[in-house]
Amino acid sequence: MLKTEFEIIENFFATSDLDFEQKGVDLGIGDDAALIRVPDGHNLSISTDILVEGRHFPIDAEADQIAKRALSVNLSDLAAMAAKPFCFTLGLVLPEPTEAWLSKFSAGLGEIARKFQIRLVGGDLSEGPMTIAIQVHGINPIGAALRRDGAKIGDQVFVTGSLGDGAIGLLCLEGKSHLDSSFQLASNPSRPCLDYFEKAYYQPTPRIDFSIHCRDYITSAIDISDGLRGDLQHMVKASGVGARLDVESIPVSEFAKRCLNLENLYKAALFGGDDYELCITVSKDRCAEFVAAAGQSKTKVTCIGEIVEGEGVELISLAQDAKPIDGESYRHFSDLQS
Amino acid sequence: MLKTEFEIIENFFATSDLDFEQKGVDLGIGDDAALIRVPDGHNLSISTDILVEGRHFPIDAEADQIAKRALSVNLSDLAAMAAKPFCFTLGLVLPEPTEAWLSKFSAGLGEIARKFQIRLVGGDLSEGPMTIAIQVHGINPIGAALRRDGAKIGDQVFVTGSLGDGAIGLLCLEGKSHLDSSFQLASNPSRPCLDYFEKAYYQPTPRIDFSIHCRDYITSAIDISDGLRGDLQHMVKASGVGARLDVESIPVSEFAKRCLNLENLYKAALFGGDDYELCITVSKDRCAEFVAAAGQSKTKVTCIGEIVEGEGVELISLAQDAKPIDGESYRHFSDLQS
Repeated sequence: MLKTEFEIIENFFATSDLDFEQKGVDLGIGDDAALIRVPDGHNLSISTDILVEGRHFPIDAEADQIAKRALSVNLSDLAAMAAKPFCFTLGLVLPEPTEAWLSKFSAGLGEIARKFQIRLVGGDLSEGPMTIAIQVHGINPIGAALRRDGAKIGDQVFVTGSLGDGAIGLLCLEGKSHLDSSFQLASNPSRPCLDYFEKAYYQPTPRIDFSIHCRDYITSAIDISDGLRGDLQHMVKASGVGARLDVESIPVSEFAKRCLNLENLYKAALFGGDDYELCITVSKDRCAEFVAAAGQSKTKVTCIGEIVEGEGVELISLAQDAKPIDGESYRHFSDLQS
Repeated sequence: MLKTEFEIIENFFATSDLDFEQKGVDLGIGDDAALIRVPDGHNLSISTDILVEGRHFPIDAEADQIAKRALSVNLSDLAAMAAKPFCFTLGLVLPEPTEAWLSKFSAGLGEIARKFQIRLVGGDLSEGPMTIAIQVHGINPIGAALRRDGAKIGDQVFVTGSLGDGAIGLLCLEGKSHLDSSFQLASNPSRPCLDYFEKAYYQPTPRIDFSIHCRDYITSAIDISDGLRGDLQHMVKASGVGARLDVESIPVSEFAKRCLNLENLYKAALFGGDDYELCITVSKDRCAEFVAAAGQSKTKVTCIGEIVEGEGVELISLAQDAKPIDGESYRHFSDLQS
């Protein structure tokens, strides 16, 4: 039987995988606030992402999957800043907490927390519709954080990993997508395909090691949460430039190629969102060094375009028979009226 | 018409009352993370409170009232640490944002942010059941933060302001309370009474100036969010001591005396919660200096008991005809089973 908030914290959140020793944390869970110390000469990076059931994860999602996704998407924001993970807080709203649910949630959260060495230092619990509000804190040497406003004309645009798998994952899990109704699987996916996409959706890889290792080569960075085109648009807008993308060079996974026709493949990669890869820019004369450094951090990077004069993102296809690609990156509140 | 998350941020959150210049904020709203600098020799205090519609505020609450309450209850946690407000993030989940709602919310939030000089540095917006997740950050000289584990035997227990008004406010607004069904108003309250209690509920006063000014005299502190007895129990448990409270000395407002019988008056004060006053302990030999310092910060403080050997909180009444007082401070999830 679950009695109080305090017993829940004690049993499921003050655990060795979440409440571990971390240099710089002077006071963790259990007081009105946590107390941390930021090393001299460093910035603290602060980011928050809120996940709502039925919107940011399916209603029947497993508790450990929800936890992994919630912390991973927040860590992805730290990766976009090249910040070293430090500590986080958790606001958790649950309709009906059970030991079983909390136990799985805690295990999933702990797995990611340990892996990225980010300590839970506080939070808040409440009853209500399931919502997870995580705030992550990371550390950067002052001046070393990556930002989205540093792209220069002539810089090459790179992305990490493969794009589109997150959106395909959601399609596999829910059978629906925010993309138009023609965004469908071309064939019934095999079990390995389904497992791959489900993992891509629930456990995106925050590119922390990569971005910290390669930050000196990177002029600008953003994480791809809403869709490549939309997120790149934010970057070029902040940087006062434009970008030209070669659509066929966008990296997609072998699994994605097997399950989608070409049109939907690029729709997923360009407008799908939920990938949590990084889109970055690199000065042309440092690309070779950058690619070598990315290799050292075991991260695939692909050049997909160039920063140009102007504004917005222009999509280029070299294929003779390419159809015009249309779609929208994820716009929150897009259909609402005042 | 509200188009995108980015337009909403631009119009309602990147405002001069929220996104103002603040020393130590190197990068605010608009990137993947904010970048802050904590002064050398200082801790950052981090606290988060999540508010759910229908649970932490009534369903028909006005947007500006919700905003004021949400930020004030978070600031109260910084007050309990004697931390100077620095910056905050906002996770906002809304079913149907309208210009009118957002405009009022932004104005209410900006009023409190300006008053306490706490800058909005980031956040996240989503559609869903109305939920407000705020995380506040404050600054303390290292070693100067108040904690709940410092109470010593012989220390005197003080509270700021008056207790019970928050719970009475909720009763006026909703006609219900988490206290038992006998917790009712004794008479129909006048308009000034209603206004007073509504303000007490929606705009509790975070005791920031007081706690920073008086922190050298205070051995332990906690903010009263769940009810005096329950919160004091957390403090004495963390400190490894017990407490004895003189019930009749608990300060209650003139408005509360007018509207409630004696039994309910002390029920509200002891078990009601939502007051966001501070409960603090002071070494016996420094009480006179402490009371003088509190006076300088224009804060009423009242001695209501003493720290004793043992554990738990004992309630003492000196009145000959005192009935036993019973009730429970707010226990989250108290009725839920695994």
